[in-house]
Amino acid sequence: MSELRQNIVYKEWVIIAKERAKRPHDFIDNSPKLVSDKEYDENCPFCPGNEDKFPNTEVWRLDDGKGGWLVKSIFNKYPALSPDVEYKWQEEGIFRTISGYGVHEVLIETPIHNVHPALMKVEDVAKIIYSYKQRVIEILKMNDIEYVVVFRNHGYKAGASLVHPHSQILALPIIPRDVKVRVEEAFKYFSDHGVCVFCKMLSDELKVGERIIHESEHFVSFVLFAASSPFHSWILPKKHSSRFTDITDEEVDDLSKHLKVVLAKLYKGISNPDYNYIVRTSPFSYGKNKFFHWYITIVPRLTRSAGFELGSGMFINPSIPEEDAKFLRSVDISDL
Amino acid sequence: MSELRQNIVYKEWVIIAKERAKRPHDFIDNSPKLVSDKEYDENCPFCPGNEDKFPNTEVWRLDDGKGGWLVKSIFNKYPALSPDVEYKWQEEGIFRTISGYGVHEVLIETPIHNVHPALMKVEDVAKIIYSYKQRVIEILKMNDIEYVVVFRNHGYKAGASLVHPHSQILALPIIPRDVKVRVEEAFKYFSDHGVCVFCKMLSDELKVGERIIHESEHFVSFVLFAASSPFHSWILPKKHSSRFTDITDEEVDDLSKHLKVVLAKLYKGISNPDYNYIVRTSPFSYGKNKFFHWYITIVPRLTRSAGFELGSGMFINPSIPEEDAKFLRSVDISDL
Repeated sequence: MSELRQNIVYKEWVIIAKERAKRPHDFIDNSPKLVSDKEYDENCPFCPGNEDKFPNTEVWRLDDGKGGWLVKSIFNKYPALSPDVEYKWQEEGIFRTISGYGVHEVLIETPIHNVHPALMKVEDVAKIIYSYKQRVIEILKMNDIEYVVVFRNHGYKAGASLVHPHSQILALPIIPRDVKVRVEEAFKYFSDHGVCVFCKMLSDELKVGERIIHESEHFVSFVLFAASSPFHSWILPKKHSSRFTDITDEEVDDLSKHLKVVLAKLYKGISNPDYNYIVRTSPFSYGKNKFFHWYITIVPRLTRSAGFELGSGMFINPSIPEEDAKFLRSVDISDL
Repeated sequence: MSELRQNIVYKEWVIIAKERAKRPHDFIDNSPKLVSDKEYDENCPFCPGNEDKFPNTEVWRLDDGKGGWLVKSIFNKYPALSPDVEYKWQEEGIFRTISGYGVHEVLIETPIHNVHPALMKVEDVAKIIYSYKQRVIEILKMNDIEYVVVFRNHGYKAGASLVHPHSQILALPIIPRDVKVRVEEAFKYFSDHGVCVFCKMLSDELKVGERIIHESEHFVSFVLFAASSPFHSWILPKKHSSRFTDITDEEVDDLSKHLKVVLAKLYKGISNPDYNYIVRTSPFSYGKNKFFHWYITIVPRLTRSAGFELGSGMFINPSIPEEDAKFLRSVDISDL
């Protein structure tokens, strides 16, 4: 029979629809893929050599020491928000607006047009994570930035339209309501129990073991007990840390290996699924704190939200988290 | 330039991406449609006459007085939740579950296989809304039901897989966190201002006028000031009422005409888009109250949520609500 499960951190319930649950291998993704067989594509706005054809504003680069770049951040050509406008709060009765102030960058992860992060060298994944950190630190020096979202859209169903590996960084002049609610729930748990709820979840997941995907020196990944969708997973630092920007170089290296493992298991296990991943971190105005814990959430896009999800904010997961995790553990990625 | 807008009821921000905004007619939906040219389909589990081939459990019917039915509610064949299990809360450390107790009905809206609600007779739409009310009242007599979601998935992108017009009703043994947060925000507004925030929004929208789609005797529809996506609209009763189940027969008739108008304008204006609509009502344990206001939300599925939306809970709307509303007002549906 189905059951409802609650995410202890956020207090959200999900329905694990055991009646209609599919087996993990049923989620092998045969939908059209956003891929290319070219390492360089003359029509790609992100490939080195195409800068004249596709002018853009470079914000930052990780130099290769030979005049080129290894990772590059540019302003999004169609930015949702821009640093060129002044922050301005306006209110006319109940109609509240803020000018479109903020940052919207595209972080080009590699000069190579068609490589999948699961197939990259670990040191190249490390460069991406290092770059995330540098960009977020830099952006937080600006005025009026309250929250920064680092995310990756992979494949059509995840909202991507370009093959060339890239992430996005969106810096906001407000704390999103959803983020605020989550932080407040974490604060409540800490007030009641004197321990970070994520630290508690991490140790309990390790004790139980059945949802663990992978454990490395500094990180643990697991399919969520209350996963919203098939293979919905978190990668959590073992040591309590509220801010992603406090990650050490050693942790960057370990996280890179770890992220590659998880992405490779998805890539090989269910055939290069479309997915999003997001770096979730404490809002910066909460400072370094004891109650929130940063992490990466990975959401393969294998289901669709319909009226029930829109109307309740809840999700129906047609898979069983323990089976998803067992399946991922069993995927042999030694050849990748 | 883009701007952030806040929904005063829920305190959620959205980004209205004016830089990349499309014109309303750019949203004409050319994706594959879930349609049929048959009024009866022998392979449809919902068509009358096919009951032997597709057995199901009928829960309720609106009789046609000739042995047939006009509207029929059946148990979902693959229910997310079921009334046949006992309600049971279980807790092992941080792992909280509730047995899959609840109700999951499919409400078959008409015996005709291929009719679109925008093209139905008004009195047939009224039968659907009347049936929603009867089913919710009936379900609320059960023990341990905390929230009921009535919703409609129309088209592939909205999660539908069957042509035959139908809605769904899901009754939950909990109040979803998202619903709770919204009700609490409405309560806060009432405490601060002594007026229902929805009533305030309604009168202010009528005053401004530019986002109104349609006004009838008892209802007003408008594109939201802080619409999450193109044409995201609400239909709100003019008279304060917290519970959908308190709708009168006269209001059912007026709402039917109104709903048909809005759906017909979408149908004709942007070519039968996939959409969800949801009846949002106050959780029943809050009783009849002064601070929440029931309504119908309509969400055409014209955009896709990606990493940013998953990571922030916010949405980027690539259209301008005032233009969407103006466009809908201009769509002539006198021939439908």
